Amino acid sequence: MLTEKLNWRYATKKMDPAKAVPQDKVDRILKAVQLAPTSSGLQPFEVIVVTNPEVKAKLRAVAFDQAQITDGSHVLVFAAWDNYTAERIDAVVAQTAAERGASETLTGYYERLKATYLPRPPEVNFEHAARQAYIAFGMALTAAAFEGVDSTPMEGFDPAQVDDILDLRARGLRSVTLLPLGYRATEGDWLLGAKKVRRPLDAMVSEVA
Amino acid sequence: MLTEKLNWRYATKKMDPAKAVPQDKVDRILKAVQLAPTSSGLQPFEVIVVTNPEVKAKLRAVAFDQAQITDGSHVLVFAAWDNYTAERIDAVVAQTAAERGASETLTGYYERLKATYLPRPPEVNFEHAARQAYIAFGMALTAAAFEGVDSTPMEGFDPAQVDDILDLRARGLRSVTLLPLGYRATEGDWLLGAKKVRRPLDAMVSEVA
Repeated sequence: MLTEKLNWRYATKKMDPAKAVPQDKVDRILKAVQLAPTSSGLQPFEVIVVTNPEVKAKLRAVAFDQAQITDGSHVLVFAAWDNYTAERIDAVVAQTAAERGASETLTGYYERLKATYLPRPPEVNFEHAARQAYIAFGMALTAAAFEGVDSTPMEGFDPAQVDDILDLRARGLRSVTLLPLGYRATEGDWLLGAKKVRRPLDAMVSEVA
Repeated sequence: MLTEKLNWRYATKKMDPAKAVPQDKVDRILKAVQLAPTSSGLQPFEVIVVTNPEVKAKLRAVAFDQAQITDGSHVLVFAAWDNYTAERIDAVVAQTAAERGASETLTGYYERLKATYLPRPPEVNFEHAARQAYIAFGMALTAAAFEGVDSTPMEGFDPAQVDDILDLRARGLRSVTLLPLGYRATEGDWLLGAKKVRRPLDAMVSEVA
């Protein structure tokens, strides 16, 4: 079932600009993002959903002119926290305490986490946060496949310029990936119908039995 | 459907050591890893499946004594390439050419990629490879949920020691995450049945419409 969906999906190169993804499908894709597990439950990222045509055009211009950004109806921008801060971690503790009850175990765990994370260089913390965003990114494109929605996982863009366009740095965020959502066009996609190329499992997987 | 599976899963804290995950389920989880999309299709990681009890005990000892590593029947170790090399990239080109046909477009694309990647510091390339491994990691734990298999996404371990135990550096690999697989124990798991805590969607998601 999952395998079938993952074989159906591909990095769509040409989307049909006439077809928009319905909101309920976008909502379920975002639900998968929300449910993605993250290190210590910090969820250190946000998603910006861009549907505005002018803004999509600006994003396309700093993303090697990839047409899916404007042909797709929605662009999900995954943006990781630029750093861990006491305020951000304390907010996670407060929410967890409110929903599960406060405890010294809970507080102690996150106090130790702050003692580890806060002295680190922002770049180290950002890289860690970015990895968490990639978990959610993988789950979002999986969710899209379940909705019969095409998507194109993209790293090919200038993050600093995307951050400028969306004013992300002022919010303590840095863009890490884009995920245009839409529907594959029947013509004009060189990758549509191409054989999916993957390393053989015995080259990717080894056993220590 | 996917949402239901993602709500079912949780970072299992206590697994039943008497229950082993059947091989066909492990195989389908690994299939999701293989089908995960990666930047330029490089799939820059491997997975080591550890079932050997002595080796699992060694891993547990360098992973804060987390019992799931020995109570679960399988531990998936996600290990990213320590660097991009001409040889590794050329192998991807060769396989793609063999399966889809050779072309100057194909060769040119990867020559430009090598010109970008190969001069970069190994640490930059490793971080990039690690992010790709996280996509597959997220999809593996999603696949486990579809199989009714419990898993525990783990970053809490000493990567250098895991690399030593599995002799990964000699293979040009560095461990990034662990994913024990097994079945939740009915007793002894403080997290079992606890409310899943997630930031509200309106705090994680914003729109540019």
